[in-house]
Amino acid sequence: MIALPDVLAAAERIAPHVVRTPLLPFGRGWLKPESLQPIGAFKLRGALNALALLEDRSRGVVAYSSGNHAQAVAYAARLHGVPAAIVMPSNTPEVKVAATRALGAEVFIVGITERVQRARELVAERGAVLIPPFDHPDVIAGQGTIGLEVLADLPSVDTVVVPMSGGGLISGVATAVKAIKPDVRVVGAEPALAADVADSFRAGELVRWDPVARAETIADALRDEPSELTWAHISRYVDDVVTVTEDEILAAVADLARRARLVAEPSGAVAVAAQARLGGGGGGVAVVSGGNVDPALLARFLAT
Amino acid sequence: MIALPDVLAAAERIAPHVVRTPLLPFGRGWLKPESLQPIGAFKLRGALNALALLEDRSRGVVAYSSGNHAQAVAYAARLHGVPAAIVMPSNTPEVKVAATRALGAEVFIVGITERVQRARELVAERGAVLIPPFDHPDVIAGQGTIGLEVLADLPSVDTVVVPMSGGGLISGVATAVKAIKPDVRVVGAEPALAADVADSFRAGELVRWDPVARAETIADALRDEPSELTWAHISRYVDDVVTVTEDEILAAVADLARRARLVAEPSGAVAVAAQARLGGGGGGVAVVSGGNVDPALLARFLAT
Repeated sequence: MIALPDVLAAAERIAPHVVRTPLLPFGRGWLKPESLQPIGAFKLRGALNALALLEDRSRGVVAYSSGNHAQAVAYAARLHGVPAAIVMPSNTPEVKVAATRALGAEVFIVGITERVQRARELVAERGAVLIPPFDHPDVIAGQGTIGLEVLADLPSVDTVVVPMSGGGLISGVATAVKAIKPDVRVVGAEPALAADVADSFRAGELVRWDPVARAETIADALRDEPSELTWAHISRYVDDVVTVTEDEILAAVADLARRARLVAEPSGAVAVAAQARLGGGGGGVAVVSGGNVDPALLARFLAT
Repeated sequence: MIALPDVLAAAERIAPHVVRTPLLPFGRGWLKPESLQPIGAFKLRGALNALALLEDRSRGVVAYSSGNHAQAVAYAARLHGVPAAIVMPSNTPEVKVAATRALGAEVFIVGITERVQRARELVAERGAVLIPPFDHPDVIAGQGTIGLEVLADLPSVDTVVVPMSGGGLISGVATAVKAIKPDVRVVGAEPALAADVADSFRAGELVRWDPVARAETIADALRDEPSELTWAHISRYVDDVVTVTEDEILAAVADLARRARLVAEPSGAVAVAAQARLGGGGGGVAVVSGGNVDPALLARFLAT
């Protein structure tokens, strides 16, 4: 498991390359808009930390992702002068493939079920290092820097609400927050349609959902499930889990555009939806984790 | 005219109440997203500074505006515990009237041509103080704090691009920038359909356009014209003016949503459009001045 010093070291490492996102007042609470990072999501923090800590840079890195992690690794690799190979499933939108290529990465398109296998082959063939999307201490420590910034900017914070999927983000944030201010509540937010962590929380052990069931939520970046490593952090540090409906997620996306002037993807708005349900006073912070929404989809949310 | 000490004092006064907006990398340059201020526009800075400097607070303040200045004054007045009366023309969208009322201001709806007259009457009846949208040194000094933040965050800045209407924003920014780093270019951005300052620049004196002609641009917050006071700052400190087409403005709005995950109003995207035309290296900063766009309008831009 990671600890506070890992997060503090990560913060120093990545500071020159990430946006120091401000807290934005929103309703009676606050937003931490990680959608404003260069690649449009918090994932950049973890990828930058992992790349900075890479020992052998010559053989490159490999990642498999159809989403924000792909661009995060490509961006961080380019910055550190490391070759990047990204494995993407064949149903990835062309715009994301193009964006990843534009960041200088070599993209491999494979069948949906072949991602992990192809990534492992690339690692073996090249002697490259795999950068996983969440199941890695350096990645978790990088995401945790968000927690440090929240505490620094809002000393009166009482609750931090964080979206959960593989759990890398909340593992890092909760580790940092609980180490510095144990009284601050860390709450995970999940779509009710992919509420495996809520179930795990109730059961007291990792409960797994069928991946097909988890894929029904519109929050397409929240369809993953925790690893043993992230569950160890979640079960130790997270105070509560709130689930939200698909309608609440879409309402939060529209609300963020109208009242905070932020473009958020559905996954990025889940913590905002959870915070709206929690109510509370002025000490609540919701992490807006990403803003990579298809423009036509956003247009549809706004028009209705 | 204002000078650097006015801007420095304003920065200290308003710091607790404004968002310290970050610089966001965008293309080869940077964005200063003032759309992230609580009321969605830079106007809050000038209004807060003016309200903080108000001597007699008991009789309240008056403003006339259909746009961002109305909400800025209402917000700042509530914060300082000062009664606010806002005069709005009868064609103001209901959502803006409601937002201004929600901030605790008393709203007076009048005929389009009666705004100034009604505001003057309220000032006379109540002994209240008029807070003009740009023609006031305290307002200009407040807007200038954006210039200080740009210089602090990007020491290598070479160009700052700022939208122009009444000229309060660029007057403040240019005063601050030129006092600290005279080599940094300050460029004004205007819609070609409301290019009165570009004409003034060429003529070397204030050239006035017919208000009806200026009203044709979709950038509805840029339909005003400089006062003698703002023109004095502009003619002394601004290096150049760039005009952009309506198509370039709409493309910038869509680009900001897609690539910077920012909701910008057309007026707020004009400097971004101008920066795209200027090209240049990594030292350019464009001020995104506001994000209060009608959601249905934004949806239309995104869908096309």
